[in-house]
Amino acid sequence: MSLEKPLILVVNDDGINAPGIKALISVAKEFGEVVVIAPDKPQSGMGHAITLDSTLHINKVDIEGVLAYSCSGTPVDCVKIAVNKLLDRKPDLIVSGINHGSNSSINVIYSGTMSAALEGALEKIPSVGFSLLNHSIDADFSAAKHYAHKIIKHLLNNSYSNEMCLNVNIPNLSAELIAGIKICRQAKGNWEEEYDERTDPMGRTYYWLTGKFVIEDDGTDTDEWALRNSYVSIVPVQPDITDYDLSTTIKNLENA
Amino acid sequence: MSLEKPLILVVNDDGINAPGIKALISVAKEFGEVVVIAPDKPQSGMGHAITLDSTLHINKVDIEGVLAYSCSGTPVDCVKIAVNKLLDRKPDLIVSGINHGSNSSINVIYSGTMSAALEGALEKIPSVGFSLLNHSIDADFSAAKHYAHKIIKHLLNNSYSNEMCLNVNIPNLSAELIAGIKICRQAKGNWEEEYDERTDPMGRTYYWLTGKFVIEDDGTDTDEWALRNSYVSIVPVQPDITDYDLSTTIKNLENA
Repeated sequence: MSLEKPLILVVNDDGINAPGIKALISVAKEFGEVVVIAPDKPQSGMGHAITLDSTLHINKVDIEGVLAYSCSGTPVDCVKIAVNKLLDRKPDLIVSGINHGSNSSINVIYSGTMSAALEGALEKIPSVGFSLLNHSIDADFSAAKHYAHKIIKHLLNNSYSNEMCLNVNIPNLSAELIAGIKICRQAKGNWEEEYDERTDPMGRTYYWLTGKFVIEDDGTDTDEWALRNSYVSIVPVQPDITDYDLSTTIKNLENA
Repeated sequence: MSLEKPLILVVNDDGINAPGIKALISVAKEFGEVVVIAPDKPQSGMGHAITLDSTLHINKVDIEGVLAYSCSGTPVDCVKIAVNKLLDRKPDLIVSGINHGSNSSINVIYSGTMSAALEGALEKIPSVGFSLLNHSIDADFSAAKHYAHKIIKHLLNNSYSNEMCLNVNIPNLSAELIAGIKICRQAKGNWEEEYDERTDPMGRTYYWLTGKFVIEDDGTDTDEWALRNSYVSIVPVQPDITDYDLSTTIKNLENA
């Protein structure tokens, strides 16, 4: 660690005005210099989307007394442009969130919060996404802040890989009722979609995505198990999605 | 296999009017009933984005003489709404593409083409994304069609997992010059971004994303190696991004 204070980049997907990012900034400020970049509008469910076919616009904004930028792009765009254009030095840590709602199980691949964190790891900067299991604008972030503080402190005091990326989910409980931290794997699960079909004033059909989440996994080593049992779940994640088991099974496709 | 002809759903991320989807439809029609759904505009780089905060609009269109829908949403939205709302029966296979440009290595996680395919596998439908290493609107898809035919035939004639998902990349060569098919793993690689900074007529700064792709992997078992050596690369992919190696390393975070 240099004599400089650590630089922590804070990002999210709920947008620059979300209460969750203010909670995370207040924790990050206890550990070093903080710079914030976040989408100028909510970008939930944006996954690993990037802006290829249009321009990006950046505005300086004042948020919690730290240097902050709002960005017209996606959460992943935010990380890319901050690291490669806006910042004077490479951050020591990227923290994303605190997301309003769970990013456990398969939700991780739809999540802008976690895609921003994974992009940080691709930039060789240790990164963590935090999500609280409460969607409300009035959610109480105090337990989430308590655990974010513990985890950020631990990461700044230990040398892990600079490609580390953690998916942290926090139950919607007070800190006293949380059982502790569990290192987990991503539970197998999926959404069963239903589309709410409506007719607009011009007589045209349109749809709203709705659905229910189904866990297809009864393991006791999963993030879903941990959260149901009042633990903070931490799933380390990485960007290689190769299905190594299937590689052997389909070897005869080489002779197709 | 039932007596019904197999139902093949064709999707892409370059949009309903891209030449690549017409190439893929023409191949799929040789094997069964084909239904098409594609974004109503180009959606490259959309990753696993879904539409949560706005409505989806679907229009029937005529494309290559098959039932086709254009969708206002992302590639993943296309798969979800087709499977859960528009189709009368579950497809036997989903094919995505043929993408204009490579989706090898880390590009897989930014790719709308591959995210649509992965969503198909999440819906328990075997799915394949095809990409040709040529971005041009005038690209010659004949070798890509030749290999898409081989692969679709093989998948319809063999019983693999209904959660199988394949990332197929085809070199920009004539079929005679292609060395064959290789089953591979995803090469480690990343983009080094550069942001082209410009000033608009009102004096405001804006940015275009540019960059160069860097391979960080000298394995001979990767998709990048296969493509550089004139092979069609097939990487089986799956949605669990847990970093199992790191799980052990960070176990002491449980006591943070």
